[in-house]
Amino acid sequence: MKCELKKVKQYEIAELVFKGGEPEGSAVTVDLQAVFSHGEKAVTVKGFYAGEGVYKVRFLPEETGTYPYCVTGSVLDGPMKGALEVMPAEEGCHGIVRANGTHLQYEDGGWYYPFGTTVYALMHQSEPLIEETLDTLSKSPFNKIRTCVFPKHYSYNLNEPANYPFLPKAGAAEKIFSGEGLPVYPQEIKERDDYWDVHRPNYVFWDHMEKYLLQLQEMGMQIDLILFHSYDRWGFSNLKPEDDLVYLDYLMRRFAAFPNIWWSLANEYDLCFNKCVEDWEVIEAFVAEHDPYGHLLSNHNCFKRWDPGRKNITHTSWQSKQFYRISEMMRLYGKPVLIDECRYEGNVPEVWGNLSGKDMTRNFWRTTVQGGYCTHGETFLPGTKEGEKATRTGEKDVVWWAKGGRLNGESPARIAFLKEIIESLPGPLEPLNGRSGWFGKDDDEILEICAQAQEGFRVFLKRIVWMDQRERDNFYSVEFQYGGHCDDRAFLYYRDDQCCAMTDLELPKDHSYQIDVIDTWEMTRKTVLHGASGNVRIQMPGKKYMAVLALREDID
Amino acid sequence: MKCELKKVKQYEIAELVFKGGEPEGSAVTVDLQAVFSHGEKAVTVKGFYAGEGVYKVRFLPEETGTYPYCVTGSVLDGPMKGALEVMPAEEGCHGIVRANGTHLQYEDGGWYYPFGTTVYALMHQSEPLIEETLDTLSKSPFNKIRTCVFPKHYSYNLNEPANYPFLPKAGAAEKIFSGEGLPVYPQEIKERDDYWDVHRPNYVFWDHMEKYLLQLQEMGMQIDLILFHSYDRWGFSNLKPEDDLVYLDYLMRRFAAFPNIWWSLANEYDLCFNKCVEDWEVIEAFVAEHDPYGHLLSNHNCFKRWDPGRKNITHTSWQSKQFYRISEMMRLYGKPVLIDECRYEGNVPEVWGNLSGKDMTRNFWRTTVQGGYCTHGETFLPGTKEGEKATRTGEKDVVWWAKGGRLNGESPARIAFLKEIIESLPGPLEPLNGRSGWFGKDDDEILEICAQAQEGFRVFLKRIVWMDQRERDNFYSVEFQYGGHCDDRAFLYYRDDQCCAMTDLELPKDHSYQIDVIDTWEMTRKTVLHGASGNVRIQMPGKKYMAVLALREDID
Repeated sequence: MKCELKKVKQYEIAELVFKGGEPEGSAVTVDLQAVFSHGEKAVTVKGFYAGEGVYKVRFLPEETGTYPYCVTGSVLDGPMKGALEVMPAEEGCHGIVRANGTHLQYEDGGWYYPFGTTVYALMHQSEPLIEETLDTLSKSPFNKIRTCVFPKHYSYNLNEPANYPFLPKAGAAEKIFSGEGLPVYPQEIKERDDYWDVHRPNYVFWDHMEKYLLQLQEMGMQIDLILFHSYDRWGFSNLKPEDDLVYLDYLMRRFAAFPNIWWSLANEYDLCFNKCVEDWEVIEAFVAEHDPYGHLLSNHNCFKRWDPGRKNITHTSWQSKQFYRISEMMRLYGKPVLIDECRYEGNVPEVWGNLSGKDMTRNFWRTTVQGGYCTHGETFLPGTKEGEKATRTGEKDVVWWAKGGRLNGESPARIAFLKEIIESLPGPLEPLNGRSGWFGKDDDEILEICAQAQEGFRVFLKRIVWMDQRERDNFYSVEFQYGGHCDDRAFLYYRDDQCCAMTDLELPKDHSYQIDVIDTWEMTRKTVLHGASGNVRIQMPGKKYMAVLALREDID
Repeated sequence: MKCELKKVKQYEIAELVFKGGEPEGSAVTVDLQAVFSHGEKAVTVKGFYAGEGVYKVRFLPEETGTYPYCVTGSVLDGPMKGALEVMPAEEGCHGIVRANGTHLQYEDGGWYYPFGTTVYALMHQSEPLIEETLDTLSKSPFNKIRTCVFPKHYSYNLNEPANYPFLPKAGAAEKIFSGEGLPVYPQEIKERDDYWDVHRPNYVFWDHMEKYLLQLQEMGMQIDLILFHSYDRWGFSNLKPEDDLVYLDYLMRRFAAFPNIWWSLANEYDLCFNKCVEDWEVIEAFVAEHDPYGHLLSNHNCFKRWDPGRKNITHTSWQSKQFYRISEMMRLYGKPVLIDECRYEGNVPEVWGNLSGKDMTRNFWRTTVQGGYCTHGETFLPGTKEGEKATRTGEKDVVWWAKGGRLNGESPARIAFLKEIIESLPGPLEPLNGRSGWFGKDDDEILEICAQAQEGFRVFLKRIVWMDQRERDNFYSVEFQYGGHCDDRAFLYYRDDQCCAMTDLELPKDHSYQIDVIDTWEMTRKTVLHGASGNVRIQMPGKKYMAVLALREDID
């Protein structure tokens, strides 16, 4: 056995490579692990088999200095000891992103503001198409991508992948790849399939995936890696429960040391009809326990939100158009809120994929000004959008949200404009609800405020208590006032669909502000006032999609 | 005493006029009533004092032929008998509008499709401004107006009316009209005021109002007459409960025979802080009992919907932006649903009054294609809209929704276009919800359908049952599919904010349809297909605000 150490820098994967024989029995649950120590901390990581007699142990050093390690396992002739000398991080390497309250922060302390996009079946496309997608991403505002491990079967996404994550069991291939194929979504399946030998990974698949995960990492992209989904004709959504865990074991051994991976247990977990809530709880616990680093971990819904209050869930990954409930979610769970699906910009017949560029942009603003984070997707039918950029691969039917390629929508430029504003602020935004916030509060809370409120406002609040929750939701969902602030240094208001000719701001009385009027669609920003404080009325152009930014002037 | 009969035509007010002395005591509860008989029917109506020694009894004959009558009361020397000879209705006179299921029908059998607008304080403006408003209305698509009896105190509506409905009590005027004035909305008032002598109507006020009610009637406008509201600085929202009924008594005696009046108990009843639910129930019962004709009767909310299931309530007069709940309301109550406030086209700072013309139009389409009815309002700040039409009166600060004047918005032309389409259909529309309808159903209902559904769809339905009501509301509120149909003769789909390049229709397989694609904003309508039936995919322009109309071709 030979150990080869490739790289030792903070926030980058350190890899111990061993040569050996083929594993006996499972090629997943190989007996190879290492303990890395640093001061009083010790981290145990499991190794994996990479094919062709190669075993690897991967470790992510999160600090600089010496990390003594000890590798053990029947794969080796005996325990191997050594030490990593971890050098300071390269510029551009910031470490793992973790939740800090309702926001996200790199390990090196910098805030991370996700501006995500969605390319579900990226890894299952041709290499030229993947390269083109990465090129598009590199020129886009996006710094996070939602993408699946397993291939995807769904409208606009029916191509056969070149490779599969495991080898099929004897005789199964005929069934899986028969003309008839396996039952596809939606399905109510009583028994689990037994087609794939999850103990025999297909290394071509994993090498291919790894190559692009690494490229994405070099580009600074966070990867919200989707571990399961229901849109399937090969049976990956219907593995036996114990096989789900073997698959995850391999994935975690191999990818957990990647600094930029997040675990998304599923895309639309509640449409995986053959998994029940208990199955998801087992999967969630397995991922949390087998991840030595505590990467971000969530579960994405179609209909029913996965409980963000669960111990192992680090953030809300929410398919929702309830932008007015973002601050409620923050208050309830104290975790970051990501609107990870809110319809896509495009023109398909399906309602989930035919938003205008204006409305996709609107969703980003509604989410972002409150300190939430929004995810983009694009679903133009190929050849239907005027002036469309064709993919260089010449492949037909390439829809970004499914396969990648080129972006044709109008929202990415506006998302870039928003991102620039957000990144220029002194810190992350906290929600600023104004009166519409009252509709999201508990009765007790409202009545308590009532007791101290002015007479007229007290009556208003009592009327809210009179409404049931359903009435309150429905009332304030449309008239919600979107805004956020960084303490008293910045206030950002989004006026949404309001065509106001003037608008009122309530600023702190004891500070002085510069007021900028922002056209979120035309991407203009104009300073209209200096020295503003207290209640201010601002002239507005009477158009939709306007925002106002108030920045404190009386600080250095 | 002398009785003078002015007019006797079906659907028009017949008036018996008596000359006499000033009433002793109350000028409202005068002892004068008449019984009009027709075949086996007999209707008792009360008379009113009109000032200057004139007493009137008004009656609305709803059929042709002879109506023997007998007038009694201490106002007369003795009972007076006579008979009306009721001639057939004039062209353009259709009688009272009443609910027929979830729709509205004139007494002569024609459907009435309300396209309403709002001018709250119309009656309290100068005569030139009222005349101008009626002129604007006559050139508009609107055939219904929401307007108040009492003057209104609110932003953009602060002018003093020329007249008040009653005379003030001795010494009260000083208080009412003092510099300080009465407490204005919002107020939590413990005791009722005692400023106005409701037994002494101000006939100038009532004559003025009557003049314009009659003009509106001649124009074919329905009047949704608002009996109470909270936006008040004179004390009309704070009469003693018994005085509320005296006021109503006079109003009913005088106006109940108008064929085109509807009773709207309040504008935003739940903001009348000094009236409790029981007060409203008394008012509702009083109006219903004192109206011999059963005019339409409802109560309009701010926050909490007045229960449309109540016996005397003929329709839902709903301030709401929950367009996706219209069919649920129809199903629950079996009564017409009027969205009588859903924000206004305009540019004021307040969220309720700064909708774009596109969104006001959108609200009309979302409501109307389901067989609901929507109400318009316009709130442009004077002088802020480009190319604005000034009022001829030269009055400043005239906002349509408050005072009338000229319409400046972009929605009325589009509402006219919609109205033309709706009136061309073979009958009123019933909701056509498609899948989004499932989110509004009871669990039992869904599970029953589940049992017979195809496998995939069954699982989909079960996932809905899994969601609580709040989740369901919030989910389908955004993805609701707006559509309606007249049995199998017409299907009207509104694609709302969807920019689809194609869209799918499910038409009956056994009939043949012409398909028209409608641009609701550009006001174009183009036939794209003949002979369509069953499942059809239609090319669409990938724009928002498109509609599709399928009309049966295989009928005469």
